[in-house]
Amino acid sequence: MRTVYLNGEYLPETEARVSIFDRGFLMADGVYEVTSVLDGKLIDFDGHAARLQRSLGELDMTNPLTRDELLAIHRELVSRNGIDEGMIYLQITRGAPGDRDFVFPDPDETKPTVVLFTQNKPGLANNPVAKQGLKIISVNDIRWGRRDIKTVQLLYPSMGKMMARKAGADDAWMVEDGYVTEGTSNNAYIVKGNKIITRALSNNILHGITRAAVLRFAREAQMDVEERNFTIEEARDADEAFVTSASAFVMPVVEIDGTKLGDGTPGKVAPRLREIYLDESLKTAI
Amino acid sequence: MRTVYLNGEYLPETEARVSIFDRGFLMADGVYEVTSVLDGKLIDFDGHAARLQRSLGELDMTNPLTRDELLAIHRELVSRNGIDEGMIYLQITRGAPGDRDFVFPDPDETKPTVVLFTQNKPGLANNPVAKQGLKIISVNDIRWGRRDIKTVQLLYPSMGKMMARKAGADDAWMVEDGYVTEGTSNNAYIVKGNKIITRALSNNILHGITRAAVLRFAREAQMDVEERNFTIEEARDADEAFVTSASAFVMPVVEIDGTKLGDGTPGKVAPRLREIYLDESLKTAI
Repeated sequence: MRTVYLNGEYLPETEARVSIFDRGFLMADGVYEVTSVLDGKLIDFDGHAARLQRSLGELDMTNPLTRDELLAIHRELVSRNGIDEGMIYLQITRGAPGDRDFVFPDPDETKPTVVLFTQNKPGLANNPVAKQGLKIISVNDIRWGRRDIKTVQLLYPSMGKMMARKAGADDAWMVEDGYVTEGTSNNAYIVKGNKIITRALSNNILHGITRAAVLRFAREAQMDVEERNFTIEEARDADEAFVTSASAFVMPVVEIDGTKLGDGTPGKVAPRLREIYLDESLKTAI
Repeated sequence: MRTVYLNGEYLPETEARVSIFDRGFLMADGVYEVTSVLDGKLIDFDGHAARLQRSLGELDMTNPLTRDELLAIHRELVSRNGIDEGMIYLQITRGAPGDRDFVFPDPDETKPTVVLFTQNKPGLANNPVAKQGLKIISVNDIRWGRRDIKTVQLLYPSMGKMMARKAGADDAWMVEDGYVTEGTSNNAYIVKGNKIITRALSNNILHGITRAAVLRFAREAQMDVEERNFTIEEARDADEAFVTSASAFVMPVVEIDGTKLGDGTPGKVAPRLREIYLDESLKTAI
């Protein structure tokens, strides 16, 4: 039985409950972060803490926890649950005002709800899926317009995963106005020769913490990085493709809408970037 | 203290809690309905029950309750909480699978979460706001593309209400591709002469239960109804405007983006439609 964190308390997971009036439950009025754990240490913790702060700020919410308090809770959960490899999920909502109203509650009266829990994933770094690569389908991107805010409005990404599964694929890339935005829970990239192409940051995509690190490492390794829009057609014609996220790190894509990329196995660039990312991020893990 | 309903039990409102793993809380994977109560009776109950069924179906969820079970719970809550005028809020989520995953849980293992609670609003039918009318601002509509499914992804509508409040207005109308879609929690209408103009049904707007009834009553009263797109500029130039929703019924709009409509008081059509709606829907209330 996991121990989870809820509003200052460490509880058995089955006892962690929130009010039915919580605005996370009634109105999806909350944000989240997922931080990976490797060798019992937190990967890119400060990147996630900074993005959390930004998400909260965009929604006029204040962070009830300092960076150090947040770090201490993460570490306590890693320790109590004996996590060597896995993830820590964090969610902050605008709290439970005791009734339902579209108007934000007075922050002096209604405190945010803070939840954290671990997901134990032994073998996460050596995930065998990274050796096979992912099959991807494309779906229309019909999400709201502020995907740079990491809110819990995840119904459509969840539907996208189900569409992929029904189509015999592993995941979906979303397409808006003819261009790929991102995956259901990851940023999307294609590779042409030595060039890595990925959509530029805007309100239309998540500002991936892993994305930022991978692009930095790629540039340091003398790879070309081009931040621009690309179509599904260009992706199907690319040499390689991959996705990045906090929990998948760098994951090769080997098939898009039924078209194999190259010989249908992970190419050279994505596996190399995965290796660099794991090595480098472990060095700064805390 | 209210008595609320949660998964088969009637509980004091402060004891009604859901798991932190509920997909409503983690992923906004849930739908809702709001049914009004007048004279202790349910307005348009069957319309709301039918729309609930449709919302669930669009998300591949099954309704755990029959129409009659749902009706019995609504009536029990009205009775236990002594509601003469007010609302009953109902939410069904895909349940709490015990962990977080984008993939839908097996419905044989994870049962939906069902929550209902009352909101007591004495004087709802004679709401004095209906005599003054609402001041509206326009905001960009950046919501997801399936607004015909009544999901709990209400963060942006909530933000819209806050934008309105900051601008000294009562509510916001949302504009997409140059045309008004709807209000933050209501359908939007303008009136030109004897003609009522409102956007046609599609995935872009909620298929309002009150909308359907009001348009039917309007046609029966020999008013012209035109279902088509309109711009904010056309709305600012209209003779009248109004909104409809289950809890506001028909509510006049007297100002849009700082421009008064007519003399800035409710006109003739909206107040008349409100009267007809209240009279007629009370006749079929159950």
